[in-house]
Amino acid sequence: MTDTPAQAECIFCKIVAGQIPCFKLHEDDDTLAFMDINPVNEGHALIIPKAHFEDVYAVSDAAIAATAATAARVARAARAVLAPEGLNLLQCNGPAAAQSVQHFHMHVIPRRIDDGLAMNWAIVPGDMDAIAKTADRLRAEIEKGR
Amino acid sequence: MTDTPAQAECIFCKIVAGQIPCFKLHEDDDTLAFMDINPVNEGHALIIPKAHFEDVYAVSDAAIAATAATAARVARAARAVLAPEGLNLLQCNGPAAAQSVQHFHMHVIPRRIDDGLAMNWAIVPGDMDAIAKTADRLRAEIEKGR
Repeated sequence: MTDTPAQAECIFCKIVAGQIPCFKLHEDDDTLAFMDINPVNEGHALIIPKAHFEDVYAVSDAAIAATAATAARVARAARAVLAPEGLNLLQCNGPAAAQSVQHFHMHVIPRRIDDGLAMNWAIVPGDMDAIAKTADRLRAEIEKGR
Repeated sequence: MTDTPAQAECIFCKIVAGQIPCFKLHEDDDTLAFMDINPVNEGHALIIPKAHFEDVYAVSDAAIAATAATAARVARAARAVLAPEGLNLLQCNGPAAAQSVQHFHMHVIPRRIDDGLAMNWAIVPGDMDAIAKTADRLRAEIEKGR
């Protein structure tokens, strides 16, 4: 864990600090996993290091390692709960990759055959009740895996 | 490092064993980075754990952690050498994500504004001379960062 202070204007640092709510899936000393509220597919989740790093160029080895291990854990839960026909881990940096929050994060995206996803996508708010229900199922599965 | 044996029919295990050549960018005890010879953009690279794991569901925490840290290192070199306007780390599992080699791997994909990349893409062989030249530049930059 670095001692990088929370960035005052960073929405993910505010989520880590509990100042903004999230549909939390998992939390440990170094990482936080929660639902993307603008999902491209059902079960779309985000995993972040608690410490603030802007992107893959800035992230510490320890932080990306912990984030990736948590992402794998969320992916296994997504497979168990949603039985997707595929799944991507995706991490975005810079304007050409449409990085929308300047705090390093990994997407876990369950896939369906022929869902036609692009590497960049438009931000469209999801159905909050549906997201909450999926979060409950994923969280229960992650807890089982402990 | 696990003691998982190389899989006899796995092309990435054969690359690790030196039985199939690659444009190598970096090698350490746990990971190998090399150029994708079917690149979607200039600088497209692959990072794998040397041990065989089929996908994100099977990969060990140690292997995904080491792979992600090497991917960040390659990403920093790609930024220095190619100055892309963005960059993705992408990891694919299962048919809906078009996983083409059943050995866990992370893509490092430099991005250009409006390159229009899809999450799945057709496999199109690249120009081997151009790939070799880009590999030389990336390798030199990664070595500098040691």
